[in-house]
Amino acid sequence: MADVIRSTDAATVTPASGGITAPLGFRAGAVHCGIKASPSALDLAVLAAEAPVSAAALFTTNLAQAAPVTVSRAHIERTHGKARAVVVNSGCANACTGPEGLAHAARMAAETAAALGCAPDEVLVASTGVIGVALKIDRVASGITAAVAGMSRGGGSQAARAIMTTDPFPKEHAVTVRTAHGSFTVGGMAKGSGMIEPNMATMLGFLTTDAQVSPALLRKALQISARDTFNAITVDGECSTNDSLFALASGRSGVAIDEDSYPALVEGLLSVSRELAVGIVRGGEGATKVIAVTVSGARTVDEARRVARTIANSPLVKTAVHGADPNWGRIVAAAGRSGVMFDINRLTVHVGGTLLFERGLPHDESAPLAAEHLKNDAVQIDVNLGSGSGVSATIWTCDLSAEYVRINGEYRT
Amino acid sequence: MADVIRSTDAATVTPASGGITAPLGFRAGAVHCGIKASPSALDLAVLAAEAPVSAAALFTTNLAQAAPVTVSRAHIERTHGKARAVVVNSGCANACTGPEGLAHAARMAAETAAALGCAPDEVLVASTGVIGVALKIDRVASGITAAVAGMSRGGGSQAARAIMTTDPFPKEHAVTVRTAHGSFTVGGMAKGSGMIEPNMATMLGFLTTDAQVSPALLRKALQISARDTFNAITVDGECSTNDSLFALASGRSGVAIDEDSYPALVEGLLSVSRELAVGIVRGGEGATKVIAVTVSGARTVDEARRVARTIANSPLVKTAVHGADPNWGRIVAAAGRSGVMFDINRLTVHVGGTLLFERGLPHDESAPLAAEHLKNDAVQIDVNLGSGSGVSATIWTCDLSAEYVRINGEYRT
Repeated sequence: MADVIRSTDAATVTPASGGITAPLGFRAGAVHCGIKASPSALDLAVLAAEAPVSAAALFTTNLAQAAPVTVSRAHIERTHGKARAVVVNSGCANACTGPEGLAHAARMAAETAAALGCAPDEVLVASTGVIGVALKIDRVASGITAAVAGMSRGGGSQAARAIMTTDPFPKEHAVTVRTAHGSFTVGGMAKGSGMIEPNMATMLGFLTTDAQVSPALLRKALQISARDTFNAITVDGECSTNDSLFALASGRSGVAIDEDSYPALVEGLLSVSRELAVGIVRGGEGATKVIAVTVSGARTVDEARRVARTIANSPLVKTAVHGADPNWGRIVAAAGRSGVMFDINRLTVHVGGTLLFERGLPHDESAPLAAEHLKNDAVQIDVNLGSGSGVSATIWTCDLSAEYVRINGEYRT
Repeated sequence: MADVIRSTDAATVTPASGGITAPLGFRAGAVHCGIKASPSALDLAVLAAEAPVSAAALFTTNLAQAAPVTVSRAHIERTHGKARAVVVNSGCANACTGPEGLAHAARMAAETAAALGCAPDEVLVASTGVIGVALKIDRVASGITAAVAGMSRGGGSQAARAIMTTDPFPKEHAVTVRTAHGSFTVGGMAKGSGMIEPNMATMLGFLTTDAQVSPALLRKALQISARDTFNAITVDGECSTNDSLFALASGRSGVAIDEDSYPALVEGLLSVSRELAVGIVRGGEGATKVIAVTVSGARTVDEARRVARTIANSPLVKTAVHGADPNWGRIVAAAGRSGVMFDINRLTVHVGGTLLFERGLPHDESAPLAAEHLKNDAVQIDVNLGSGSGVSATIWTCDLSAEYVRINGEYRT
């Protein structure tokens, strides 16, 4: 709890156009190299800085880690947080592919390094798609050469498309952060869909900034900003073999971040990450609504998160929201099985600001009002545990629809 | 681990006809009292012994406990494990109903006691159905009088129907246990459907036996047999406010159970409980297949259960099975995020006996054979963690279908 994020008078954050190439010093290129079947579907992207820059990364906590995760982790450790580029493919996760998969991930880095003229260690690798299938590595190698050759300052949007799998829309965002010492930009792109859960679970995120910051401080800011954004979303409680979140800082704005101006960097990363993370939920498989579950009155933030996550992952809550049913009973039951202790008689449940449960009893007269709110595509559930302190946490999720079942019952075969 | 259950030469277990009234000394009656809308739908049942007998019960671990749970727990503690009867209604859970709900549950016991001529403490109470709605207690009271008046030795099957909510079929079973000292019978009934998870999560189970056993030994046998049956099933990972499992022992067979013959009682309870528990899964909301997930090669039984439960609750695994897709990648990924440590290179995955994953690599040539198995309505998934010891655990679950979403999006409104 050393890092409390506050609005600071010193920094204002406003939306900017573009995504990962909005900050100065980055270019991106994307191609169809032949992993996806459709010839019009982009499936490979390269994001590069002009020289090795500060880099940070967070990876999946799943024991079954894909080859690109193993390779990227080794690279960023070896360079002590420096990277020139990130290479990403979609359509194939390069996971559960054994020694051959590791060789393929290493070759992706080597081909990118050769095209850019840097060391292979300075390239980070990410893959997303089907598990257990070998990469068509020769096609990928040709694709890398083409993608690097086609890189441009405006290439961010194409890259955001190239990393999609079952995502219904690309996700990119950028903001300008103004401080007393000058302005810098933060940009980003992400892919999500099924198998999303907190702690880097099947999701790829890429953040860039032209602020100047040390690798250590960038890593710290990335961890803080991910906690309440990328790590606060869940589509189905699943966790993937490939989840990775990368941040690169070019320094090209000339604005240097130190311990004092660090909150401004965190605010910029938070703002972009929140937009991308909620976008991942909105684009969750079969999702028709984004649900924000806010739990307050918990004894600790961890307990608030645990209750919020249990409610957000409850299939009964998610189907009720899908059907616009203000079923507070399912919310109370999910909170009750979260493993967090509280007094049921002090619990309150609001849906869309309407009180539905208090002192152990329902307010069913308010159900029609709450049902109206549930017809929106953004739903707010508030639970107060009544355990005293003022701490709270929010987890974002989506509703559970028959379409989710259809997509996941038919995806691979 | 003191209680290892073995097949004993001394006992043989064979199926018998009937359910809770198959053992000697029990009668049951069921009526439509007016909780459910349809006049032909039974919604209240009473099960009674001829006198107070040994009784044991296990209850939901949810913090939000329904009134009948609170009342039954108090009653069985006060009588030190003696009960004359159980009264059950369906259609209304009497949960989140405050002091009025507690009064209603107490009155259900009192009305039953009055009709039978016993103390109210000697009656246990269970309710299942919608949460947060008050019982129509006067109708319930009239129903109790009628149900007791209509009790018979053949009333078990009617009772099994009266406890159903969205269950597609009634669940009852009985077995005869033959020992060197004579034979006794074990019977049971259960209701399940959505909101089923291990540790007594939205499920009602009732077991009867005419063996003669102390309350303490009956409780121990109930806990042991529930561990690998009622507590080893999951439909959607949910846990309810009302889950309860009751056991009554009339002693009318004349066969006395002591520490030596105790395994015979456990085998009888296990046999009936397994049949009922798998029946609950088979009748899970929208279920088309029963999936047995067996995890072996774990370091401890608890770790085996944890991995099996994570796989069994995975929406991606459940939708893949629904679509008959031998997607071992989702099984590996679920195992990997279970929190149990293992070496991914020693993990093996079999589906229907077909090896699909070994030494970090898939056997996709076997996928068509596994896909054939997945078309059955009983599916077997075997995961070996390769961590040495011989311990294993099985969790039963069902597939996830679009029908589950339909039922739970429309159930209450």
